[in-house]
Amino acid sequence: MLKDKINRYVENLCKKAFVASKSAALNTSADRNNILKSIAQNLDKDRKNIEKNNTIDLNNAHKKKMNDAMIDRLILNGDKITAMCDGLYEIIKIPDPLYKKINSVKQKSGITVSQMRVPLGVIGMIYESRPNVTIDAAGLCLKSGNSVILRGGSEAIYTNRRLMSSIKKSLKSHKNKKNLDLVQLIEVTDRHAVGCLLQMNEFVNVIIPRGGKDLIKRITQESTIPVIKHLDGNCHVYIDKEADLSKAMKISINSKTQRFGVCNAMETLLIHKSVSKKLLFKLANSLQSQGVEIRGCKNTKKYLGNVVLAKDVDWYTEFLGPIISIKIVQDLDEAIAHIDKYGSNHTDAIVSKNKNSIEKFINMVDSSSVMINTSTRFADGFEYGLGAEIGISTDKLHARGPVGVEGLTSLKYVVSSQGKIRN
Amino acid sequence: MLKDKINRYVENLCKKAFVASKSAALNTSADRNNILKSIAQNLDKDRKNIEKNNTIDLNNAHKKKMNDAMIDRLILNGDKITAMCDGLYEIIKIPDPLYKKINSVKQKSGITVSQMRVPLGVIGMIYESRPNVTIDAAGLCLKSGNSVILRGGSEAIYTNRRLMSSIKKSLKSHKNKKNLDLVQLIEVTDRHAVGCLLQMNEFVNVIIPRGGKDLIKRITQESTIPVIKHLDGNCHVYIDKEADLSKAMKISINSKTQRFGVCNAMETLLIHKSVSKKLLFKLANSLQSQGVEIRGCKNTKKYLGNVVLAKDVDWYTEFLGPIISIKIVQDLDEAIAHIDKYGSNHTDAIVSKNKNSIEKFINMVDSSSVMINTSTRFADGFEYGLGAEIGISTDKLHARGPVGVEGLTSLKYVVSSQGKIRN
Repeated sequence: MLKDKINRYVENLCKKAFVASKSAALNTSADRNNILKSIAQNLDKDRKNIEKNNTIDLNNAHKKKMNDAMIDRLILNGDKITAMCDGLYEIIKIPDPLYKKINSVKQKSGITVSQMRVPLGVIGMIYESRPNVTIDAAGLCLKSGNSVILRGGSEAIYTNRRLMSSIKKSLKSHKNKKNLDLVQLIEVTDRHAVGCLLQMNEFVNVIIPRGGKDLIKRITQESTIPVIKHLDGNCHVYIDKEADLSKAMKISINSKTQRFGVCNAMETLLIHKSVSKKLLFKLANSLQSQGVEIRGCKNTKKYLGNVVLAKDVDWYTEFLGPIISIKIVQDLDEAIAHIDKYGSNHTDAIVSKNKNSIEKFINMVDSSSVMINTSTRFADGFEYGLGAEIGISTDKLHARGPVGVEGLTSLKYVVSSQGKIRN
Repeated sequence: MLKDKINRYVENLCKKAFVASKSAALNTSADRNNILKSIAQNLDKDRKNIEKNNTIDLNNAHKKKMNDAMIDRLILNGDKITAMCDGLYEIIKIPDPLYKKINSVKQKSGITVSQMRVPLGVIGMIYESRPNVTIDAAGLCLKSGNSVILRGGSEAIYTNRRLMSSIKKSLKSHKNKKNLDLVQLIEVTDRHAVGCLLQMNEFVNVIIPRGGKDLIKRITQESTIPVIKHLDGNCHVYIDKEADLSKAMKISINSKTQRFGVCNAMETLLIHKSVSKKLLFKLANSLQSQGVEIRGCKNTKKYLGNVVLAKDVDWYTEFLGPIISIKIVQDLDEAIAHIDKYGSNHTDAIVSKNKNSIEKFINMVDSSSVMINTSTRFADGFEYGLGAEIGISTDKLHARGPVGVEGLTSLKYVVSSQGKIRN
């Protein structure tokens, strides 16, 4: 496909989504939920075709010798389809935040100033591999009153097209005919299509990428549209001198080993020197028995012996696997300074019984989630009660941490009075 | 000054502000307010020197034959200095939103998920002419726990330097010595310094420009840092067929004429055909008696006679002066479509007694402020009870409408439990 043709194709999709987003304000809460329900029902009915198309993608993936982890993420069948439909029903249950006056305050002048949550407009969603994101993202964007442009990975194109047909069917059967264009799938697999999408600032309000760090860096650099981005999850657990040691043990092991390849897994353990002797040996044993490689600071290595000496690069690394770096620190300040230098502002935990230490840690550590005596693995939209998440933001502006329906909305001011004018 | 030297100079200021922002989390609410109070006191004591420096700027402005409006904005003396100090006392009164757990919910898993408002970090403030912005911006950024880099216009450099000396004096005398670098003034007047600042994404979290549309467009294009921007204020008043006509009259006149050169003044009046005959003649008389030029649609001209025929460009124009464009519309939908096409998403008003029309208008009109039976001139941080404003955002992400202390903060998640781990 010629670049020009791709440009026109992407621009056309974006325009359609943009126009549809305007009249989406006419939909009621029930309209939005009915569409989601209808999509879930259509998906359920279409299981066979979804699986058939998924098989095509899987066969192509095998032919291309894609790695096992990626192939695993690509699979969409039986229980996974059920889970995807259940996800939509969960989104239906989320309270609708749109078009209600909130935070109303009557000012001295006599005007009443309120705010109202409204959709952002058009969301551009760029993701890889897992085709269920197509439905999760469409569901959250529709719930929050937005249009969405979906750009899944080329490896999942047959599956995504089939999923899209259920969405289209539901939108088409809705009484508000303008809803038809609310969800758009970029079916061109050429990478140039992503570049085009990133230039559509006239029609698209925000880009949400989900994928590897390199993809996200490229998108951030190229995009003329604001990006809600999720970079590394280089998460820390700090065990304070006044920690409950059995909790410290439990939280450290869970944060590291409950699942390895996830962004909210701990990568570096910081341990106060005064408790390191009591804990380290037991902790290392437990980690090593689960196949975790330890890369320790000089003192950790001195004490444990059988571990690799950590290099500076290790403290920066999101291992996303069975490797942990461990550092013995002199005090809380050194722990905070370490996280400040090497961390990625994602999720960091303190284990302590001392209120002042906890307060200092949560105020000074500049992360989207700070955990107190709690595993880092809880940093997740579902666990936070958001109902669902479209991603986790390590940005500070607009949305930070797990992003649910609210993160896809904006607040406008609504001011009312009985004819007030300014003096 | 060589470009290289300017680069190093700006980078150094940004680094200092960045380092200072880290330890600002150690300041208490009282610390922040004490600094503001001290600045107000120092400014009050330094009146003579401020006026002396302001005279230098004014003399230079006259020599450069700057226009009267700009010179007027440049003046800082007597009452204006008092107002600037009063502004700081107003900021002190704003409730401190920082470092408190809010929205706490205990989840089924046993974890308690809260949010905490924290500073954004380092704010880059780029503005023109009015030197009191130096104090307003510093005050709001300090109140919200941020560092700030100030880049005022070269025409106000002597005044700004003198204002800065009061700020520095207050920061220097504070017990937390790391606060000294919280406020930085770029004293190099070379325009290259702005370009440098816009590349400092490693140290600066957000850029807030205040000035003409061209300045803001340039900043948005060049910046590698997110920008909270305020473009046009092409504001509309729509008079519905079910409007209270005396209120409609009052609101229209006030929105247009209470002050001409402001972003929240009405530029286009949309009037329903069924009330146009009753209102237009009286309204036009009143406007014209106040020296306002009317540019009307075909029907308006037919009816009023003595008015200019509006061109398409007029509907797009923020006149910022005694000119108004008037269009007679067939219905509410045409009014909404007109605002959608020509508006700037700033502030738009409806005058109506019909609840359904009002609801449709506030839901469909995509503006940062929507006014119901209220003058557009109220769209302002002070009028909204924010205590002060650092600007008005016509963006949808992060901050929308008047931006006060909250807009300069971010929400992080704080999660606590007694040792919960994920299953």
